[in-house]
Amino acid sequence: MSAELIDHLFLPAFGEASQSVLGDSAVLPAPGGRLAFSTDSFVVRPMFFPGGNIGDLAVNGTVNDLAMSGATPLYLSTSFILEEGTPLREIGMIATSMGRAASTAGVRLVTGDTKVVDSGRGDGVFVNTAGIGVVAEGVDVRPDRATLGDVVIVSGYIGVHGVAIMSVREGLDFGATIESDSAPLNGLVAAMLATGADLHVLRDPTRGGLATSLNEIARASKVGIRIIEADVPVSDVVADACSLLGLDPLYVANEGKLVAFVAPGDAEVVLESMRGHPFGTDAVVIGQCIDAHPGMVAARTGLGAERVVDLPIGEQLPRIC
Amino acid sequence: MSAELIDHLFLPAFGEASQSVLGDSAVLPAPGGRLAFSTDSFVVRPMFFPGGNIGDLAVNGTVNDLAMSGATPLYLSTSFILEEGTPLREIGMIATSMGRAASTAGVRLVTGDTKVVDSGRGDGVFVNTAGIGVVAEGVDVRPDRATLGDVVIVSGYIGVHGVAIMSVREGLDFGATIESDSAPLNGLVAAMLATGADLHVLRDPTRGGLATSLNEIARASKVGIRIIEADVPVSDVVADACSLLGLDPLYVANEGKLVAFVAPGDAEVVLESMRGHPFGTDAVVIGQCIDAHPGMVAARTGLGAERVVDLPIGEQLPRIC
Repeated sequence: MSAELIDHLFLPAFGEASQSVLGDSAVLPAPGGRLAFSTDSFVVRPMFFPGGNIGDLAVNGTVNDLAMSGATPLYLSTSFILEEGTPLREIGMIATSMGRAASTAGVRLVTGDTKVVDSGRGDGVFVNTAGIGVVAEGVDVRPDRATLGDVVIVSGYIGVHGVAIMSVREGLDFGATIESDSAPLNGLVAAMLATGADLHVLRDPTRGGLATSLNEIARASKVGIRIIEADVPVSDVVADACSLLGLDPLYVANEGKLVAFVAPGDAEVVLESMRGHPFGTDAVVIGQCIDAHPGMVAARTGLGAERVVDLPIGEQLPRIC
Repeated sequence: MSAELIDHLFLPAFGEASQSVLGDSAVLPAPGGRLAFSTDSFVVRPMFFPGGNIGDLAVNGTVNDLAMSGATPLYLSTSFILEEGTPLREIGMIATSMGRAASTAGVRLVTGDTKVVDSGRGDGVFVNTAGIGVVAEGVDVRPDRATLGDVVIVSGYIGVHGVAIMSVREGLDFGATIESDSAPLNGLVAAMLATGADLHVLRDPTRGGLATSLNEIARASKVGIRIIEADVPVSDVVADACSLLGLDPLYVANEGKLVAFVAPGDAEVVLESMRGHPFGTDAVVIGQCIDAHPGMVAARTGLGAERVVDLPIGEQLPRIC
């Protein structure tokens, strides 16, 4: 059954993004340079949502994880855990989206695997993607490189993917459909790197949202981070949805946004490069690294007060990726 | 929850086999040379079985897929899909086995991911491993390189892993416990490559067993393959279990065996190198590539007749990996 799925479903669906053979292992040309290596399993429910599905999310997610280490993503593996009884049509739509997303991102699907589990022992389709990228000489992007004075930039409006998923799940209607922002960010990162600026930290704030990413960076880099609440771009419809759902947009997942830390002298040229890219048109500075409260994140509120932006502790995050 | 699992469960369990940080993406030294890249999701039931569990199976499986392309495995990623309510003790045992298996195989667990799904939407623990290896100059091992005259070698007794799993599942007792042969084969492959022999094809006959691997190789290489049934090593206990379960050992999964195709002139030195390695002591020649029936596999039976060894078509293979 797996062999038939590969020949008749996955390979045609993946299209030009796949190698001719999806064997047990792919042998690839030496990319030369340090490698970046990343993996992610995707279990998002519903599998199909406004603006995407589990397939393009799985491709973009791993492309972005690689890009966040400053790498150029090259190759992806795909592995499916299919629940018996899942309509082939749905699997085909997911695979087609993966092929299209891989082509868009400029990566190749080079090896794969499929397992089928009994009905009731899985949940439709789970997708794992792992990826290999190459890191250019001189690039050193790490969550522990944020430095006192660094400027914090986000690439656009936050909270969109999480709200898109939760709106569907809760059956909410906000007048307009909120579409996931799922997108590959490797092109945006390439534009930022092309400026020659020394990017210290890049992160795509997925599970746990911007607040979680900032906290992880503050801890890893042992700096304090202060953001200006009013400067964080949140669209009206996301703000409305969040207040209805009782959510803070800072904690809501994104799939096509990044946060960058750069030295103040580099901020202008990096911002400019981002605004010149389709996935960074709304890029803005939202804060800075400070010497107060190292390891912690604070937000200056609209009233001029300062509040701690904590990690969400013990909370069960919904299946948004 | 994922962050806590990583810090308090996975990292201690993986031990010295893991990097200090299991971040979104690992940046690794340039290995120099062509890369091999492979992925596999593991859904075996039961998760714990005589001779191993889903964790060491997941490490050995991807190590072996890399080794079968002639690569030296270097790095593995690990990704878990955990069903809510799975005992942490079981997850810990699985992770500990993974760390131990990685150390044994000489590979490092460098990046990972964890997802939790609702109870009833998964099945305990699913594990994905992807892996990167490096292929030395001059090595060209591919399923389509089998050539007329090539000698077919298996590394030992077949059908052990599948029978071990199915015995537990069916509650069968054969007097002695049959233990899975799950093992990393990269050391054995390294010994074979060290002879300088030109290995044409390597394959670990997992799902679908030896018959399926031979069929895939015959098709890919467009050669006929003839095996001598009496020369295929099957232990008495596996033969007994298979006859009780109505199985043909040729179709039963292995996890610590390989089949190799080499030119007749290389057969002796390769066999010798295998027999000198703990995982190849019982290596034997079982057949040859012939010009009759290209793309097909035939077995000479004990009675001197020849029977076609087909691909298992449309059969639902049990969850043995």
